Amino acid sequence: MKTDIEIAQEAKLKSIGDIAKDLHLTENDWEPYGHTKAKLSDNLLKKLQDKPNGKVILVTSINPTPAGEGKSTVTVGLGQALNKLNKKAIIALREPSLGPVMGMKGGAAGGGYSQVLPMEDINLHFTGDLHAITSANNALSAIIDNHIHRGNELNIDPRRVEWKRVMDMNDRVLRQIVVGLGGPLRGIPREDGFTITVASEIMAILCLSTGLEDLKKRIARIVIGYTYEEEPVTVKDLKIEGALTLLLKDAIKPNLVQTTENTPAIIHGGPFANIAHGCNSIMATKTAAKLGEYVVTEAGFGADLGAEKFLDIKSRAGEIDTAAVVIVATVRALKMHGGVDKNNLKEENVEALKNGMSNLKKHIETVEQFGLPYVIAINKFPTDSEAETDFIHHWCESHGAEVALTDVWARGGEGGIDLAKKVMAKADSDDRNFNYTYEINETLETKIRMIAQKVYGADNIELSQKAKKQLMFYEKQGWGKLPICMAKTQYSLSDDPTLLGRPEGFTVSIREVQASIGAGFIVVLTGEMMTMPGLPKKPAAYNMDVTEDGKIVGLF
Amino acid sequence: MKTDIEIAQEAKLKSIGDIAKDLHLTENDWEPYGHTKAKLSDNLLKKLQDKPNGKVILVTSINPTPAGEGKSTVTVGLGQALNKLNKKAIIALREPSLGPVMGMKGGAAGGGYSQVLPMEDINLHFTGDLHAITSANNALSAIIDNHIHRGNELNIDPRRVEWKRVMDMNDRVLRQIVVGLGGPLRGIPREDGFTITVASEIMAILCLSTGLEDLKKRIARIVIGYTYEEEPVTVKDLKIEGALTLLLKDAIKPNLVQTTENTPAIIHGGPFANIAHGCNSIMATKTAAKLGEYVVTEAGFGADLGAEKFLDIKSRAGEIDTAAVVIVATVRALKMHGGVDKNNLKEENVEALKNGMSNLKKHIETVEQFGLPYVIAINKFPTDSEAETDFIHHWCESHGAEVALTDVWARGGEGGIDLAKKVMAKADSDDRNFNYTYEINETLETKIRMIAQKVYGADNIELSQKAKKQLMFYEKQGWGKLPICMAKTQYSLSDDPTLLGRPEGFTVSIREVQASIGAGFIVVLTGEMMTMPGLPKKPAAYNMDVTEDGKIVGLF
Repeated sequence: MKTDIEIAQEAKLKSIGDIAKDLHLTENDWEPYGHTKAKLSDNLLKKLQDKPNGKVILVTSINPTPAGEGKSTVTVGLGQALNKLNKKAIIALREPSLGPVMGMKGGAAGGGYSQVLPMEDINLHFTGDLHAITSANNALSAIIDNHIHRGNELNIDPRRVEWKRVMDMNDRVLRQIVVGLGGPLRGIPREDGFTITVASEIMAILCLSTGLEDLKKRIARIVIGYTYEEEPVTVKDLKIEGALTLLLKDAIKPNLVQTTENTPAIIHGGPFANIAHGCNSIMATKTAAKLGEYVVTEAGFGADLGAEKFLDIKSRAGEIDTAAVVIVATVRALKMHGGVDKNNLKEENVEALKNGMSNLKKHIETVEQFGLPYVIAINKFPTDSEAETDFIHHWCESHGAEVALTDVWARGGEGGIDLAKKVMAKADSDDRNFNYTYEINETLETKIRMIAQKVYGADNIELSQKAKKQLMFYEKQGWGKLPICMAKTQYSLSDDPTLLGRPEGFTVSIREVQASIGAGFIVVLTGEMMTMPGLPKKPAAYNMDVTEDGKIVGLF
Repeated sequence: MKTDIEIAQEAKLKSIGDIAKDLHLTENDWEPYGHTKAKLSDNLLKKLQDKPNGKVILVTSINPTPAGEGKSTVTVGLGQALNKLNKKAIIALREPSLGPVMGMKGGAAGGGYSQVLPMEDINLHFTGDLHAITSANNALSAIIDNHIHRGNELNIDPRRVEWKRVMDMNDRVLRQIVVGLGGPLRGIPREDGFTITVASEIMAILCLSTGLEDLKKRIARIVIGYTYEEEPVTVKDLKIEGALTLLLKDAIKPNLVQTTENTPAIIHGGPFANIAHGCNSIMATKTAAKLGEYVVTEAGFGADLGAEKFLDIKSRAGEIDTAAVVIVATVRALKMHGGVDKNNLKEENVEALKNGMSNLKKHIETVEQFGLPYVIAINKFPTDSEAETDFIHHWCESHGAEVALTDVWARGGEGGIDLAKKVMAKADSDDRNFNYTYEINETLETKIRMIAQKVYGADNIELSQKAKKQLMFYEKQGWGKLPICMAKTQYSLSDDPTLLGRPEGFTVSIREVQASIGAGFIVVLTGEMMTMPGLPKKPAAYNMDVTEDGKIVGLF
């Protein structure tokens, strides 16, 4: 079987100029980055503001398992399938983070014959967006420490600096560090730590901004920490929002590439899906909606985290209407939710599958609560038995749910035709009555409870003493009208990663909360969230190489 | 008076495709990065290997002073002037580092009507080369700490890890840090520190590599530290040279831009000029030599550091023949070398100028020792008096030195015509008898002494006990046949920054040495070298901004 990079290298790419021409873009609308990548002008959205929007299709999934669901691959495959049906479809995806590529993943741009290309660039430095975010984040850090070092006019409490440095690398020893050692020439010593770049609030801001001015306003609002009197200190207080925005002047522009079948794809931004909202940028999704009849876009993790945040945070900020939802699952993953061990997934087990459907069922109910039409996509694996797929068909029929089998990894768009037809029917219908999970004017505590009960199926929430005090403080600061960004394990509907399927009768424990005032949401932590990954014993980087004639190996 | 960014924004740029076409480049020879930047293929040099080389003109200067010399501006202006004389001239420069741009400098791409453009990109992220170097450097760091954390098979002594993390930022609190705190999930605690990216050995390696394979070989040879038995540990031992090279696959490609007058410029690489060799890449200079009749290139700091390293390190590694040298000075700077305080530079002072000529005189002697023809370029300032410039003319005449006044900041190439004519005459003559400062097979100590005596005019060198022990160890390791990279203050010919003019009777004290085995040189430290700058009280970043319509301010 061919690897992803082999398939990618055999694909016949169009020049990005041809892709741009197919989208009726003029010369000022885009800039080339090499022959197969481009940046779209940040003025394009304004230019196209009177054009009607294409229909947005959100791809989400059951709670992810080690068995793999292939959500990105289905997203790409569905876009390709729509194009095969002569619809103008554009895919909007997140950009991969270099750290995990070097660590576990080896690559993250779809798979097989449903990839975005050039995958070797997209998986490495791409057009430099993540590097620009790293620079802006760390310029702010340097300015903060320089301010403290040079007299600390703002009276910043070094123990209460919440702004962390970032690096796009899996580097565990940077999780907890002490900086400023070595005497007066080396600044004021304090505890600090690095997170991975995609966990930077600047990444979340970039993805929620509607343009350059909005970006600057959001950056100005970032709360970097507190004074000795516990008053918030903002980027505006440090007078550095102009320089930070300047560092992001190109990163704000969405990136245009293509898939293995030359379907246009806009890849832009990639915030963490727990401490941030886990979606590609508003500018990417909205630009795609202006350029295509259909936009196929993806949110991180399962529907409990990704879809909820896409709809309650991103769509609220960006005024995005979702036409239909695709919920991706695999037979293998559903069997894991039904109790099968990872090592026994190859064996047919309809009973386990039946139990595992409870996980899918909850996500269906969630999408129904949002008032959106949906299609279940079962992403085919060679080990799926006929009895198993038959069971799924009967289950969906008896539950009134539309389902399509997809085979987009092996067959590209051709493997997603059935899904595409069903999704179009849903998206083109008027069968929608959209509701947010919560009204924005509720209190922070009420909003958290509504997500836990309505989306996770929890009985209740329990706030730690610390979290209670923080929420009171936030409400007093006037931050109570912001949406909630839940940081919960992706593996379970509950806050306990070992509870697969559909846990019931549980309480979600809230450990603490964090204020992402620039991004415009309150992060709610249900447990320890790792914002700087580590490398495994044998990092994926060990397999990577480039030969004298430029051939790349080890990305997959 | 207009600022650099205002002049830059008014310049009429050609599309980079037109610049490439003028250089007879075909479509496979280059890739666009936006409309006015390109990367040249790393195969271009091989393709053009049988083409005769253009003449390389090295621009160097007296020891820099706070008065300013304008070496980059003269380099750009000279290239433009040659083009005005209908010669095909190409400029080869270093890329600026973002850290100092945000800190003191605000920009570093020539000045006035002798700039390389688009300066707002070149000064910020440009084509991402420095970010790629940061990533490769820090991927290696993460791999080292991960190796130690996961059993330490190679028996690396955590106290003897010499490989540091890097960031392209002026951030003093990162100079000395402790990493790995917080328990077993956060790795092994050890002392560490960040240097600025341009001080990374990977930057030096990139600039001394002749291609992708050479790059990989050099990376494999990097010594990252020592085992508990004090044996060197290399990147090859860690098996990560393939992945690091892959991260640099685009950074190795030279960047093509243009000047305010549309003269082609290749801007690539920018290593520190003290702990590294301070020149743009071998690939940039050699590619420029294949594409043009004349290459105007620049080395860091004064001739004692920059030109010496350009000739003894870079030209030796890259087999580059230098046709002529330009030594840049200003009346103001020479007066400072003659004892005038920075605040009194506007006043005419021929006596001080006369004293200050001693500094220029030593650099002339150094260039003569190398056996190369040269022209003195006096870069005009509005405050220069006629008596002062007359004095310089008479001095040069009586010393048999060719001199030209230049006014390239205000007048572009037109202001460098006289210099261009004189340089061409020198470069086209056969008046050369090139010698290195030292033969490569001498011992390390002999080579250090020869640089100190012949280039700095020192009586002798004095090695600390530590340095003596290190040199013995290095010779034993087989590293004795490498060239020397002196890390000395740039402000004085001696190792004491306060001794201006031409100090005599001094001894150069060697504090310690460092092995840059991948780059292929031994760094000799004559004092404390700061490899991570700090920010000033009012960083240049405070003035930077970008407006809603994309207009950039605060870069200069």
